[in-house]
Amino acid sequence: MPNDATPSSRERMIAATVDLLRGYGLSGAGINDIVRESAAPKGSVYHFFPGGKQQIAEEALRAYVPQVDAFIEQAMAGQRTPALRVKALFEAFARRVEGAEFRRSCPIGTVCLDLSGESEPLRPVLQEALETWTRTIARHVDLGDARRSRSFAGLVMTAIEGAYVRARAEHSAQAFREAGQWLAQAVA
Amino acid sequence: MPNDATPSSRERMIAATVDLLRGYGLSGAGINDIVRESAAPKGSVYHFFPGGKQQIAEEALRAYVPQVDAFIEQAMAGQRTPALRVKALFEAFARRVEGAEFRRSCPIGTVCLDLSGESEPLRPVLQEALETWTRTIARHVDLGDARRSRSFAGLVMTAIEGAYVRARAEHSAQAFREAGQWLAQAVA
Repeated sequence: MPNDATPSSRERMIAATVDLLRGYGLSGAGINDIVRESAAPKGSVYHFFPGGKQQIAEEALRAYVPQVDAFIEQAMAGQRTPALRVKALFEAFARRVEGAEFRRSCPIGTVCLDLSGESEPLRPVLQEALETWTRTIARHVDLGDARRSRSFAGLVMTAIEGAYVRARAEHSAQAFREAGQWLAQAVA
Repeated sequence: MPNDATPSSRERMIAATVDLLRGYGLSGAGINDIVRESAAPKGSVYHFFPGGKQQIAEEALRAYVPQVDAFIEQAMAGQRTPALRVKALFEAFARRVEGAEFRRSCPIGTVCLDLSGESEPLRPVLQEALETWTRTIARHVDLGDARRSRSFAGLVMTAIEGAYVRARAEHSAQAFREAGQWLAQAVA
């Protein structure tokens, strides 16, 4: 084990994997790419992640979930009504993609669209991530009926993932703001 | 040029590329994968597509656009109101993903989320595809104001791309039907 294979090397590898997954999906996050981007010694990848790419991808996705959960929470909290919260959430995501110059998306979305027989073990992680975020959104959009709130939060989640797709093609955050306006109106 | 490098070989290669792009994005549609899936002789790929992978991917995406445009048209035509048309559209996509057992998505979506410096030349093709489909949807959802109809059609497009993401993770078409119900209600 190299001297610099400290916990911070491990963290750098996870962060590099998240970034590569956000940019290019599973295929863009090969071991060599992760090593290059994290500047970690190659041997340390297998030291920390004996399961190789599958393991590091899974851990990166799991590490990303609470980050975005906190992001959603922060965007929606402090707004008075469901409509204002929905609008604020999409505005926060719009700024997020603008900040990344439309070159990064949600790693859950990119990996979903890459799923194959080989990567099938990652599917429950993806499903759980969507479920976690949807629950958080639903908590902030109380429509007076749990099932209805939950279903609307599902639509918000769908629109976020779809707006990430459009933002990459359009080099614009318009899809997020458009969705924010319509969906805020739907619960106004 | 091999004997069987007839126009139908070329079509098989395009069809195989569309299918691979729908499953796994750009990285899943390597020349070797295309050759394997289309059962075309490897030499014929470079005969038909001297620009290699970039060219075949671009042609496959361009070939896919009118197919889905006709699919959208067919799903929405014959319904009396914008709300019924929106619902019918999402139901048609729900059946489409069910038919593919949640293993195929929109190749525009998968390629969007793979875009890199190298594949940047494909971006206008992706943008144009989304634009084409959005225009078709807008034609069927006349909200009395061109800008408003166009913006709503944009939201429908966003929801379709996002539902494709969720369908892969959830092995369910629920995201499509949920979006169909809410968005039909928004224009009812």
